[in-house]
Amino acid sequence: MKKFINKTDDILKESLSGFATAHADLVSLHLEPNFLTRKTKAQNKVAIISGGGSGHEPLHAGYIGNGMLDAACPGHVFTSPTPDQMLAAAESVYADKGILFIVKNYAGDVMNFEMAAEMLPFEHATVLTSDDCAVINSTYTTGRRGVAGTVIVEKCVGSLAESGADLQSCKTLGDKVNQRTASIGVALTSCTVPAAGRPTFDISETELEMGVGIHGEPGRKRESMREADEIVIEMAEAILADFKAKDLSLNQQEALLLVNGFGATPQMELYLIYHAATKLFTAHGITISRALVGNYVTALEMAGASITLCLLDDEIKRHWDSPVHTSALRWGV
Amino acid sequence: MKKFINKTDDILKESLSGFATAHADLVSLHLEPNFLTRKTKAQNKVAIISGGGSGHEPLHAGYIGNGMLDAACPGHVFTSPTPDQMLAAAESVYADKGILFIVKNYAGDVMNFEMAAEMLPFEHATVLTSDDCAVINSTYTTGRRGVAGTVIVEKCVGSLAESGADLQSCKTLGDKVNQRTASIGVALTSCTVPAAGRPTFDISETELEMGVGIHGEPGRKRESMREADEIVIEMAEAILADFKAKDLSLNQQEALLLVNGFGATPQMELYLIYHAATKLFTAHGITISRALVGNYVTALEMAGASITLCLLDDEIKRHWDSPVHTSALRWGV
Repeated sequence: MKKFINKTDDILKESLSGFATAHADLVSLHLEPNFLTRKTKAQNKVAIISGGGSGHEPLHAGYIGNGMLDAACPGHVFTSPTPDQMLAAAESVYADKGILFIVKNYAGDVMNFEMAAEMLPFEHATVLTSDDCAVINSTYTTGRRGVAGTVIVEKCVGSLAESGADLQSCKTLGDKVNQRTASIGVALTSCTVPAAGRPTFDISETELEMGVGIHGEPGRKRESMREADEIVIEMAEAILADFKAKDLSLNQQEALLLVNGFGATPQMELYLIYHAATKLFTAHGITISRALVGNYVTALEMAGASITLCLLDDEIKRHWDSPVHTSALRWGV
Repeated sequence: MKKFINKTDDILKESLSGFATAHADLVSLHLEPNFLTRKTKAQNKVAIISGGGSGHEPLHAGYIGNGMLDAACPGHVFTSPTPDQMLAAAESVYADKGILFIVKNYAGDVMNFEMAAEMLPFEHATVLTSDDCAVINSTYTTGRRGVAGTVIVEKCVGSLAESGADLQSCKTLGDKVNQRTASIGVALTSCTVPAAGRPTFDISETELEMGVGIHGEPGRKRESMREADEIVIEMAEAILADFKAKDLSLNQQEALLLVNGFGATPQMELYLIYHAATKLFTAHGITISRALVGNYVTALEMAGASITLCLLDDEIKRHWDSPVHTSALRWGV
């Protein structure tokens, strides 16, 4: 294992310290328990808090800032944060209109956010993201996994909260965006969790893992390596089938297409995937009117990528387009 | 070699098409010869054109837009663009105040941009970037290599050009920023050029390449793998020695610190490097007042990173801070 680290136990603290220093205009770092908040506390709004295991950066700390999250709680690499982190974060950012947790659907995260919610002295609600249509139930999950679509949920809910909406409205929008979003990933290589010191899974030079999770969990099947267009067809068909199963009409539907790198996939390849996916979805009557291409929800240094399609309506579009000022997403300000 | 590609010959066109579609609000793609321009042509300003081999994305096309480049000319992977590309780009973006080429110092790029310059019917000048202090002369270079510092040159010169400055002022600022910028990179793994199909160099699980170039060119030396703090000390000392050799004073000096990922290094590790580098430079009396951390000048899927330090003055600071609206750098708009 070759990584830019010192002691394995110090990775998180050193990395968070670097992040907080580099973005001192945007975020404040709180240690023991670990959480990050906006530099300037927002007033009189629903406070949006997310979190999860580290190793998926820029998720979630990279999305703290005006128009998106109020706080993020980072666990150790691929390990859920603990309830004391969420409680301390909530105490810090509560702004008189309740707390909304945005949680990716993994057993550890769900349990720990639930425990925190039970202890919260504030009105609260939770949006569980479950956009991964690759598999139902998985290594760390009952039900579907929450993956790159979480960024779209955080962006839209963050925008609505910024406008002064109440807790229930934020929860309702988050659930709607999640429902209208489907993702699937593919891995060409494994990642290596520093504390484990060896690759999470074995994969040969001629194979790919279709439907992989963002921790290297198994997907739908192991396949032989093939051309990008063929890989993208398989991914797009999984997404289209998922919307069909949900009875969501695709004809003349406007959509946001997110092509997300898992960590080690060059931008050239991500844009090539975007090109192939756009052609395919367009052929199915979908208009891709919003795009996001890059490393937004990673799996350490895994080579691979995911495709996420979010079916837009006027409300989702308005909240996606609204100004956002975070270290990882910024426009309109 | 596992990559998201179809035919090797089609990578560039498919990837550029995806980029141009995803950022259709910002850029226009022109094919045969290949170049990209701003969507909306700027008026009455020095036109800033850069380019070079592909595989370093977001460099250069990701920096097209208001406040930065007017056009970019992408060659094949790690291969210089040809003069017809630069000529066509110049014809397209010329806006009555001359053409400034920003060129990374590699023999092929220098030759082809020079040939284009000789044929240009417009007033023109060239800024050669050579910020890599790792080695003098290299596989593809006479003199020092131009690497991640090129982004800082493009940002500052782009800002000055946007303000209506003349060609000579833009050239002078570009040369100054280059002179006050030093970089050094380190590789943990090689990259694989698609057309070659195998890693550019061999490196074992216990080694690193100190001073590597952004095409995988050899650096200063092959070393045994070590802790991040030790790696960063060696890199920082090379940078400090370079400024000392240039007689640039560092005491109470304000600086921009860019920690750049080569493609496969997780953000967690880049921020850990940023943390270590900030401590070191601060101990040498330098104040890090501007930060950039992420994948800005990559080497395909190489695991590794570079550190760039730019010594700020009021002029450079003003142009770094000014609004920019490109797909890869955006603030103030």
